[in-house]
Amino acid sequence: MDASPDSPVRSGIPEHGRVPKYYAVKTRLSAVLDELGEGGLLPTERDLAERFGVARETVRQALRELLLEGRVRRLGRGTVVAGPKLEQPLSLASYTEGVRLQGRRPGRKLISLDRATADASLAGQLGLATGDPVWHMERVLLADDERVGIESTYVGVARAPRLDRDFDPGSSFYAFARERLGIAVGEAEERIETVLATPREALLIGTPPALPMLLIHRLSRDTEGTPLERVRALYRGDRFSFTTHLRG
Amino acid sequence: MDASPDSPVRSGIPEHGRVPKYYAVKTRLSAVLDELGEGGLLPTERDLAERFGVARETVRQALRELLLEGRVRRLGRGTVVAGPKLEQPLSLASYTEGVRLQGRRPGRKLISLDRATADASLAGQLGLATGDPVWHMERVLLADDERVGIESTYVGVARAPRLDRDFDPGSSFYAFARERLGIAVGEAEERIETVLATPREALLIGTPPALPMLLIHRLSRDTEGTPLERVRALYRGDRFSFTTHLRG
Repeated sequence: MDASPDSPVRSGIPEHGRVPKYYAVKTRLSAVLDELGEGGLLPTERDLAERFGVARETVRQALRELLLEGRVRRLGRGTVVAGPKLEQPLSLASYTEGVRLQGRRPGRKLISLDRATADASLAGQLGLATGDPVWHMERVLLADDERVGIESTYVGVARAPRLDRDFDPGSSFYAFARERLGIAVGEAEERIETVLATPREALLIGTPPALPMLLIHRLSRDTEGTPLERVRALYRGDRFSFTTHLRG
Repeated sequence: MDASPDSPVRSGIPEHGRVPKYYAVKTRLSAVLDELGEGGLLPTERDLAERFGVARETVRQALRELLLEGRVRRLGRGTVVAGPKLEQPLSLASYTEGVRLQGRRPGRKLISLDRATADASLAGQLGLATGDPVWHMERVLLADDERVGIESTYVGVARAPRLDRDFDPGSSFYAFARERLGIAVGEAEERIETVLATPREALLIGTPPALPMLLIHRLSRDTEGTPLERVRALYRGDRFSFTTHLRG
């Protein structure tokens, strides 16, 4: 048998040799997707159930996993084969630059920009005192007008006093910091995990509820090492992957 | 209101102000978990349903999400508050070293070691010809005897001719390459995404099926730049996060 690390090993056949019915359907559907190619329209659930000789509910379960994994997506009332996941480099470069590199059109849509007060944990991270004023800005991330994530940025009001008046929320905060505040980002700590979308997040991004998301926590510092911003960036797990180059 | 990027913004309250019932229960359960602390035993579903005045099915849905996210875990017939996720640095260091750094005891359990032939894609990545022999080694990753992931390693037979005889599959392949083959790893490309566990993978790791996992694809090269191995490493999304330090 040929070895291929691009698909799960042995196509998920359990050790005991029993494949759950929905999973066998998923494997066969996977081959249908490969044949159809990106953008191809899937047959209806009813047609697929007939073709595979299983209940519609079984087809639905297989389709649901393929949807959560980003192999297919809804288009109007139909389901089509999705394109490959975006590959975003883990780097200090902004979301904007990463998306452009892949030939997609980046965008951001402001959800909220509020003045809040830092709790003890946020204050510690940003080098502020508990209760100090912070900006909290929430933006939906777009790629070719598709909603692909939500970014929550926290920055001390003292570092960007006129953020609410001078900053265009459709643009990059790093460009603003550089050009208007004279602050260059020098380094960042990031932590990546997978979480489920909350109902509000699912609504804002337009995903099925409980879609697995990639969550990146970032704490960035300026070139002097002083904390600049704390970011909670949530990316659709069905649309994004992250790449990095490691050296010894 | 205090700002805190450690929890989802506004606790998932949808824009229209309607919180799904299970999500309201999840938020209240979250507070119960904080009070109980790591290892604390949760009340039964029946007790929780009574306390919150909701159906047991609603409690079950909330608990299911908390389980998938790694906030709680099953222990015998009960459910207890889980510890924090492991934070594994993205680096050339092996799994073994990363787990040790966090004061946990790493381990690996061999599932299979087979000789296979490289398909076109794998051959291209490893700098081999299609059909060339490759080792395919599958190991379950352990932390303190808990099964936390599965690692699938592909390496050309020509690079490690006696892997099946000389290598202790409980140990680090990088240490073996260094000490027995005289090959040092110089760099690697990694890509991280979230996928659902297949039934076989769920069985091998002992997770609920369809648990969101973190999948890392790695292609490592020796210090001369020659490809050494292709790895497909799957980590439990409820137990792992990955960290990285970015510089400008």
